[in-house]
Amino acid sequence: MKSYKKEIWMNATKRRQYINITPIVEESLNESGIKEGLCLVNAMHITASVFINDDEPGLHNDFEVWLEKLAPEKPYSQYKHNGFEDNADAHLKRSVMGREVVVAVTEGKLDFGPWEQIFYGEFDGKRKKRVMIKIIGE
Amino acid sequence: MKSYKKEIWMNATKRRQYINITPIVEESLNESGIKEGLCLVNAMHITASVFINDDEPGLHNDFEVWLEKLAPEKPYSQYKHNGFEDNADAHLKRSVMGREVVVAVTEGKLDFGPWEQIFYGEFDGKRKKRVMIKIIGE
Amino acid sequence: MKSYKKEIWMNATKRRQYINITPIVEESLNESGIKEGLCLVNAMHITASVFINDDEPGLHNDFEVWLEKLAPEKPYSQYKHNGFEDNADAHLKRSVMGREVVVAVTEGKLDFGPWEQIFYGEFDGKRKKRVMIKIIGE
Repeated sequence: MKSYKKEIWMNATKRRQYINITPIVEESLNESGIKEGLCLVNAMHITASVFINDDEPGLHNDFEVWLEKLAPEKPYSQYKHNGFEDNADAHLKRSVMGREVVVAVTEGKLDFGPWEQIFYGEFDGKRKKRVMIKIIGE
Repeated sequence: MKSYKKEIWMNATKRRQYINITPIVEESLNESGIKEGLCLVNAMHITASVFINDDEPGLHNDFEVWLEKLAPEKPYSQYKHNGFEDNADAHLKRSVMGREVVVAVTEGKLDFGPWEQIFYGEFDGKRKKRVMIKIIGE
Repeated sequence: MKSYKKEIWMNATKRRQYINITPIVEESLNESGIKEGLCLVNAMHITASVFINDDEPGLHNDFEVWLEKLAPEKPYSQYKHNGFEDNADAHLKRSVMGREVVVAVTEGKLDFGPWEQIFYGEFDGKRKKRVMIKIIGE
């Protein structure tokens, strides 16, 4: 069995932002030399998400509006977590969108359906955070 | 290490539908010959879900009502994604329910609790879509 | 390839409760002797969750308030699932928070970011339930 690990640094310029990291994950898979296995991609921070969906700006706008409806950023005082912080909403938004994805690796490729793309979802940005890529297989 | 892959075609007759795919996953696990490992099951399309819950029609009705409350299908015009499409709500519903499950394989069986069943959740149906089953182990 | 499995019993004293199980998972990883691989941790019951977030009591209070807003426990009669049961809301809350996490194992450790902790989220407690830990690797 082979295993491969890479950490990648994200630096979102906005509080909330969606960044397509599919090319970075593909490059990592190539580096790993693994042909058959599983690829885990996860946010290493608890106010961010890794998820799979469509690379379509209208949809990303819909995510923004929808997540603000489900777990609004403001007023900050509505959340007990916000004693010394202001990011409780980011913990909740990340819970909806998920921490991680696991992707099948087949014949050296991410084994995806037609529109699947991997996104880093930042909900408390303007700072550096890491994403983990861990691949096991052979 | 062994690896096994199967794609299965789903063809939901309704826009939204929950289909128990546990027997198909069990059959695939038997075919694979893998006794110890991990089994990934994921929707290959971004308006569908694979999740684990109870096979109880009342609960599935509750999912329908609840997801329509969290991310209503209509009016279509409330979503920016719906320029040429009408399925933005399906992308959001799938985000709540999740893309994938990872199940332990022990002694050649899906290592489940008493009521765990794997469902394909369709949120934009009346068309053919695929589910991925990828098993690694030995 | 090595594989390791452990079931751990949870016994939440409240209907809804968050229990940090990171030390138990770390102990299991040590027992397994696995240095590189993937660690799956999942609820074996469909009204409970395993998720990764911050070990901060204010945030856990925010989860309680927020999940009660998204999927209220009462009135029980609002859910079709509640014919002979009263836990439909627990099935929905668990859908938001997720069934499972998959964690990278690197150099014999759970390969975590700075604040990541694994929680068992109970949504229909006062009874014994199990969590699965399955680790594969070498």
